[in-house]
Amino acid sequence: MEFVIIGGDAAGMSAASRAKRNRPDLNVTVLEKSSDVSYSACGMPYNIADSDREIEDLVVRPAHVFRDKQGINVLTGHFVESIDPKGKTVAGTSSDKKAFRFDYDKLLIASGASPARPDLPGFDLPGVMALKSLDDGRKIKAYLTAHNVKKVLIIGMGYIGLEMCEAFVAGGIEVDMVKPGSTLLPWMAPELSEVVKKELETHHVRLHLGRDIQGIEETSGHLKAFGPDTCFQTDMVLLAMGVTPNSELAANAGLALGPGDSIAVDRSLKTSNEHIYAAGDCADAFHLVTGEKTWIPLALRANRAGWAAADDVCGQPPNLAGVCGAAVFKVFDLEVARAGLTVKEAGAFGFDPCAVVVKTRSRAHAHSGSSPIRIQMIADKKTGRLLGAQMVGREGAAHRINAVSVALHNRMTARDFSQTDMAYAPPFGPVWDPLLTAANQLLKKMR
Amino acid sequence: MEFVIIGGDAAGMSAASRAKRNRPDLNVTVLEKSSDVSYSACGMPYNIADSDREIEDLVVRPAHVFRDKQGINVLTGHFVESIDPKGKTVAGTSSDKKAFRFDYDKLLIASGASPARPDLPGFDLPGVMALKSLDDGRKIKAYLTAHNVKKVLIIGMGYIGLEMCEAFVAGGIEVDMVKPGSTLLPWMAPELSEVVKKELETHHVRLHLGRDIQGIEETSGHLKAFGPDTCFQTDMVLLAMGVTPNSELAANAGLALGPGDSIAVDRSLKTSNEHIYAAGDCADAFHLVTGEKTWIPLALRANRAGWAAADDVCGQPPNLAGVCGAAVFKVFDLEVARAGLTVKEAGAFGFDPCAVVVKTRSRAHAHSGSSPIRIQMIADKKTGRLLGAQMVGREGAAHRINAVSVALHNRMTARDFSQTDMAYAPPFGPVWDPLLTAANQLLKKMR
Repeated sequence: MEFVIIGGDAAGMSAASRAKRNRPDLNVTVLEKSSDVSYSACGMPYNIADSDREIEDLVVRPAHVFRDKQGINVLTGHFVESIDPKGKTVAGTSSDKKAFRFDYDKLLIASGASPARPDLPGFDLPGVMALKSLDDGRKIKAYLTAHNVKKVLIIGMGYIGLEMCEAFVAGGIEVDMVKPGSTLLPWMAPELSEVVKKELETHHVRLHLGRDIQGIEETSGHLKAFGPDTCFQTDMVLLAMGVTPNSELAANAGLALGPGDSIAVDRSLKTSNEHIYAAGDCADAFHLVTGEKTWIPLALRANRAGWAAADDVCGQPPNLAGVCGAAVFKVFDLEVARAGLTVKEAGAFGFDPCAVVVKTRSRAHAHSGSSPIRIQMIADKKTGRLLGAQMVGREGAAHRINAVSVALHNRMTARDFSQTDMAYAPPFGPVWDPLLTAANQLLKKMR
Repeated sequence: MEFVIIGGDAAGMSAASRAKRNRPDLNVTVLEKSSDVSYSACGMPYNIADSDREIEDLVVRPAHVFRDKQGINVLTGHFVESIDPKGKTVAGTSSDKKAFRFDYDKLLIASGASPARPDLPGFDLPGVMALKSLDDGRKIKAYLTAHNVKKVLIIGMGYIGLEMCEAFVAGGIEVDMVKPGSTLLPWMAPELSEVVKKELETHHVRLHLGRDIQGIEETSGHLKAFGPDTCFQTDMVLLAMGVTPNSELAANAGLALGPGDSIAVDRSLKTSNEHIYAAGDCADAFHLVTGEKTWIPLALRANRAGWAAADDVCGQPPNLAGVCGAAVFKVFDLEVARAGLTVKEAGAFGFDPCAVVVKTRSRAHAHSGSSPIRIQMIADKKTGRLLGAQMVGREGAAHRINAVSVALHNRMTARDFSQTDMAYAPPFGPVWDPLLTAANQLLKKMR
């Protein structure tokens, strides 16, 4: 049986390895457009921050190891241009300009997502960079050195923008961040996002909210980014305006699309064509809380979906739950975490959200080194069900969020969650864990 | 209505405050034998380590605040000697040698636990100390200074012994630890306890396993602790041989006892007498995993049980789940955590335990500053149900354990737990969280 995979990062290589482990007799071919497979994309901001490190350090397993040790036919520089679902073939062009065509019995699309790059004047200039592939990382790192970058403008204030802002500041680079929206991290309670804002300002990052960049020009070795009421002179621009799923190939092959134009898949990762699967940042998923389709491109899901698709291809029942958007990122010394729905999402999906914001501390009463932890916790007034939480703190936010995540998997009520037996010792939290304090406050408010 | 509470720490004061909040018309009297109420006992090792801090810093709320602001009749120095369940009175003697007697409509016994102090020669000498009450902390702190202690022998190697060992070393004191058993932390997998052992040895703590101390003598200003094949010369001895529930009063009043001679209570904290409740370290609880009675004296449970007892007294349905023994402690730079059953306990309660030990890392591939995280995870072969986990690591063990705890509350299988959506960012863990790696390995082993 021929199992062909389009894309060689998290979902694609997880699927390839798993399929070969499940069924060594399978012919597994991976077609990757870039020169890299299996790397830790999320590690790039930290790698870029550290001039002693090579981008290559982020490669988890190079292509030749997949070939030689696992017998996977990994072909880099292979850009797939079309899928023919009737003939069960994929076709494209390789980096040495040769046309290729592969027959498949089962096909997995693991084509990932691409950074949004609006079609505006100058957004394609050299020095206007985005960060998604390892090659993007290489280019940014090279550009920083080659052009002696002292000033960067980041367009967008999401995860990647915020993580990269830390990387730039570490390199002694001045950072301005700009976005059209008027709110930093609008999915958080203002009491939480305000803390993030202060952290950025403490590190001399200048935030420009409510400003829209509509064009970029080159001016005497610098870049000028401008909008209706704004103009920035800078050495480099980072586009961090979110990502869009690479679903064109699927759409052209007539496959159904889901939220945000991601590729629609069922619970075993099958697309609307029974021989074609999709997994990773290009595919949608079921949301654990709403039960509806969602598109939340994150690394763990990509790996897990790769495994599940491979299991299904091999005739083994796939083990795959939905997602709840559990995520964490670091903003300088802050841990920012979330799981489940925001208040706005909860309302949009027909819940009757009740939310509290609590400020507690990261260590026990009278224990030195404590810092504030702020949590917004949300439940449904009608059923009491826990819907989500967001947290910000200098310590103890990143791993605490997973307790919420497990609760969401189990459709716990806030009342039941408030009864969870949690570990306590003074260096690690108050006797009532911040999550329990939030749940207790929520119960009071819902009474 | 007269609500009388014996004991003014976590369970007692939580109950008193809650009862007054529920029903301001209630007469609430707290009889506390020592001079302290409402303090953070678990904070003592850290307070003792810091000579700049007073033990009084650990007081969360002093007695007069409970009296003046909350209208609770807090009587310190009141030692209750007997309960008369028929006459519904308690009687005792106060520190100024006066007899007292109180009538109650409802009584809560929140008498806590006491450090085990074996009836052996010299175990009552000055300089042979234990640590449970704030007064114990005061005495230890004073003794260390007054006797210029340079060397301490800790008998026992449980939570308190290990936490205190860090406190002594911080004060430049040499520490020997001794216990009759041959295994450090026998509830852990050897791969995990070995890490704790090394951490202690790195800090020059000398461990003497399999040695039994049978007597202590005073010799020229020092102490000599000796056993069949052992003899230690030291300046101070700390007894850290575990605690026993203060249930004598209850037993003498004819109340039923539970595991470890703790006071038996039902799900609303009622003892075998319908007008008498028990909560905190003196009372038993239902174990979430086994469904059986257990005795696990921990601070969160004490606070929570205090609330629940007060709610029941006030005619409100109490909200109280069972316990799963979620606990964490710090051993120098290590976080040591557990939740649920050990392999041995699982076997004893009729499960067919399957366990794996995994070693993963605290941060992502290629992220600097990563350290090993070791997890033992246990499930039931027959049902696949998750039974417990233990973890050791320099970072990320303390809060991760609560995700296991939430899973145990929901009786999750290892398979379902392995599917939990967990947050990922390189500074905080690998893309497959250590807990997920452990669950995945467990699934493989159970297949």
